[in-house]
Amino acid sequence: MKLLRYQKDHQSSYGLLEGDTIYQVGSPYADRIDKGKAAGSLQSVKLLAPCEPTKIICAAKNYPWGENPSKSPRPVLFFKPPSSVIGPEENIIYPSSSQHLIFESELVVVMGKVARNVPVKDARKYVLGYTCGNDVTAYDFILRDNATFHGKSFDTFCPLGPYIVTDLDPDETTITCRVNGQVKASGATGGKYYSCGELVSFISGIMTLFPGDIIMTGTPDIGTLNRGDVVEVDIKGIGVLHNRVI
Amino acid sequence: MKLLRYQKDHQSSYGLLEGDTIYQVGSPYADRIDKGKAAGSLQSVKLLAPCEPTKIICAAKNYPWGENPSKSPRPVLFFKPPSSVIGPEENIIYPSSSQHLIFESELVVVMGKVARNVPVKDARKYVLGYTCGNDVTAYDFILRDNATFHGKSFDTFCPLGPYIVTDLDPDETTITCRVNGQVKASGATGGKYYSCGELVSFISGIMTLFPGDIIMTGTPDIGTLNRGDVVEVDIKGIGVLHNRVI
Repeated sequence: MKLLRYQKDHQSSYGLLEGDTIYQVGSPYADRIDKGKAAGSLQSVKLLAPCEPTKIICAAKNYPWGENPSKSPRPVLFFKPPSSVIGPEENIIYPSSSQHLIFESELVVVMGKVARNVPVKDARKYVLGYTCGNDVTAYDFILRDNATFHGKSFDTFCPLGPYIVTDLDPDETTITCRVNGQVKASGATGGKYYSCGELVSFISGIMTLFPGDIIMTGTPDIGTLNRGDVVEVDIKGIGVLHNRVI
Repeated sequence: MKLLRYQKDHQSSYGLLEGDTIYQVGSPYADRIDKGKAAGSLQSVKLLAPCEPTKIICAAKNYPWGENPSKSPRPVLFFKPPSSVIGPEENIIYPSSSQHLIFESELVVVMGKVARNVPVKDARKYVLGYTCGNDVTAYDFILRDNATFHGKSFDTFCPLGPYIVTDLDPDETTITCRVNGQVKASGATGGKYYSCGELVSFISGIMTLFPGDIIMTGTPDIGTLNRGDVVEVDIKGIGVLHNRVI
């Protein structure tokens, strides 16, 4: 199932996509998702970020590249603020204070149920599905601070979408990141040090996760973004998240 | 004015305290706060955390003690998750995974308006008021990770309250922390490296702050908490935030 959130006639709603048609659904977090009336074609609406997280938890150093040649003894995690979320086709704003913006193309876990102390084997039951995310980063601030707060928290630094796909093996797909149509990064999600289930379990052992909360599971690679660039995060089985840098 | 949030007859409401009487108010974030009907005495309700932040931003190393002998070139900041918030009289849960819990008694700025790129001199206009906070920390995880995520994010690790006081000079009061009635830490808020206005300005230059979002402005000192302890954060001009560790 492909779930999405859209705006039509100044109203935000959750929907379900079949072919090119959006069908109304109530809450995607209900025990059963019932397909309602057709709400229009994909082209007739503005897509929004597919969920509204109260928490955005990101895994750092979760793929073997550059400074992460080996697995850390436990997941390395940080927060991005909910104010950084934007939807598909929305613009990433290049902060005037930064000189070096990068993309981080990531598979994103969207929680479906309240989760607390969840064992790895049960993690899937608490997950609604998976979407594409871009952990946009002002890399110069990360290097300056050796900390994530300043460089990861700007408004528009968390594009999400376009859909939440519920039936996907998140640890067996591929992420490709294109800038202006050119492939700049790619990787198999099977290469992650910590699987989606392991991350859900570890994080829910610290804090309660709520429906719509997300876990960004790490980037297989990074690359520079410049003003005017169009960046696409393409995850096989989900879709393409497309944003312009302004 | 003393603003609070309370639960009565299974309903949560904002209120205004005069003497021992709570009066109804609509949204405390409206342009004008109108005093409505009396809702009952302070003793007749359960107090809740006085705001519902979408973001909790904390200043580290903002007072001169121990490892912070001098001012950092800019504020050192981190996030706590909203899931860590509890109200006055609620219990702090000692995680079974930790061996060393500490209190951090802090003056907390509560935002009143949407704030983005606010100059220091205008910061006060965007602030609703100030409350007491305890940045409860599993110190062993902080030392292990040299990072804040794991040690600062447990459920119940962010007691807030009891009131938001709107007419207070936050940079000219005193914080006292008592454990089981004994003073364990105290300090003048004038000792902060970065003032409340400077923090609002700096943070709003990175991300948009929303009404109810909070800035925890740092602790003048720390101290150990054990199971069964009663911890009180007492800020002159605000009140006493009282929680038990279980």
